[in-house]
Amino acid sequence: MTTNQLITQIKKKQSFLCIGLDVDLNKIPQHLLEEEDPIFAFNKAIIDATHNLCVAYKPNTAFYEAYGIKGWQALEKTIHYLNENHPEIYTIADAKRGDIGNTSSMYAKAFFEDLGFDSVTVAPYMGKDSIEPFLAFKDKHTILLALTSNQGAFDFQTKRVDGIELYKQVLETSKNWKNSENLMYVVGATKAEYLADIRKIIPERFLLVPGVGAQGGNLQEVCKYGMSPDVGLLINSSRGIIYASQDKDFAQAAATKAEVLQKQMHEELKQLH
Amino acid sequence: MTTNQLITQIKKKQSFLCIGLDVDLNKIPQHLLEEEDPIFAFNKAIIDATHNLCVAYKPNTAFYEAYGIKGWQALEKTIHYLNENHPEIYTIADAKRGDIGNTSSMYAKAFFEDLGFDSVTVAPYMGKDSIEPFLAFKDKHTILLALTSNQGAFDFQTKRVDGIELYKQVLETSKNWKNSENLMYVVGATKAEYLADIRKIIPERFLLVPGVGAQGGNLQEVCKYGMSPDVGLLINSSRGIIYASQDKDFAQAAATKAEVLQKQMHEELKQLH
Repeated sequence: MTTNQLITQIKKKQSFLCIGLDVDLNKIPQHLLEEEDPIFAFNKAIIDATHNLCVAYKPNTAFYEAYGIKGWQALEKTIHYLNENHPEIYTIADAKRGDIGNTSSMYAKAFFEDLGFDSVTVAPYMGKDSIEPFLAFKDKHTILLALTSNQGAFDFQTKRVDGIELYKQVLETSKNWKNSENLMYVVGATKAEYLADIRKIIPERFLLVPGVGAQGGNLQEVCKYGMSPDVGLLINSSRGIIYASQDKDFAQAAATKAEVLQKQMHEELKQLH
Repeated sequence: MTTNQLITQIKKKQSFLCIGLDVDLNKIPQHLLEEEDPIFAFNKAIIDATHNLCVAYKPNTAFYEAYGIKGWQALEKTIHYLNENHPEIYTIADAKRGDIGNTSSMYAKAFFEDLGFDSVTVAPYMGKDSIEPFLAFKDKHTILLALTSNQGAFDFQTKRVDGIELYKQVLETSKNWKNSENLMYVVGATKAEYLADIRKIIPERFLLVPGVGAQGGNLQEVCKYGMSPDVGLLINSSRGIIYASQDKDFAQAAATKAEVLQKQMHEELKQLH
């Protein structure tokens, strides 16, 4: 999917919501455990109930790997279901990968070509040649960790490197990589006040913003400092939406939570006119 | 496996060789493609021929993920084969994972408990709470990327953070994490001259050293600057060993290459007496 197609979808749905499909069998409604594939059954119900309210889904691969082969089968079924039934939806493999060049190429091929995701999250620590193999894919996005939503972000990301914070160095340096127009960045909602500085370095790139809801981030603050003329934001919510209820009404309860965020986003989008 | 058990194995075999099982179907002998599971057939033959010459095997998960479900099945079969037939062998899942706390816990459970690896490689960018869930597992090691073997290591890892290089900051900071005695570190053989400085910060920890062979690193240099009184080194070689031949003699050819390194290691170990 191109960036313009994503922007068109955002304007049509009046939403820049991404729903994180982080499926934990201990947290889903227990009646689903009788299904042949409880993880996929859960995802399908969530997708069917929420796809008009969001523009993207983001399965975190850790939750699928934790269930071994069955987990990977559920991930494959989920991405195929999305691509077949909702091709307008943007898909993110939250994998946080990154390795030496020829190995990163294997990861890129797996997520972009074999699974058919529109984008994948990657970690910057190994530098340019660990990321450029992802960037080489046309009409795919590579979402680089910049400033994450967790407490550990302060261990290294905000430390000053040659006078400027490491996460800013990551932003600046990555702008010079080949096909850098295919980059997006992860910036945690819990650090919304950093967004004004970030926008000075990358005024146009899309930001994937986790941490709204369960982790305490605030949507209005994120929009105030982070919105670009072309929106430039994908706000992710996982637990706050998908675990809104553990009863048989779980999908409808998720849609209700998603709609609250979608309505707030509709309000925020007015500032672009 | 405990660190002491690993050291005992190294002294017994007079080897600190780790063989990287980075299986690419385009590079393995073509007669294996007729097998039901060519990846596992290749790994089993390599393991059968080399297990007396090395102390560890390291599958890089990217190579398995690239083949989807079949790849994961081959990875599962490989680790189960190792744990059942060669329980003395140390196993490393080269996955370079790392995520927020509850998600890192999912990865740790997947690699340590479900798959049964002795260790997993992780990336430091997200800081303490992304790594401590791995460190919580008893008799398992968490191998943190410090200074990698690729060119991109110079993009961020060697930049100065508050006056000292980022990779040194990673070493220093991680020493204070809970259960830090379960840490090992990745240090590329292509940067052997950095090892003297690294040993000043972490004199005792084991280092996993990739980049000998195909990437140009030198075994003698690594030992000169990196060996600790308890050896403290696992030297990895992947392509240089497993792709020594593409004919039916591939496993024997791999053993021959492994033996060359094992004999060099036997010489290097003499300096400990």
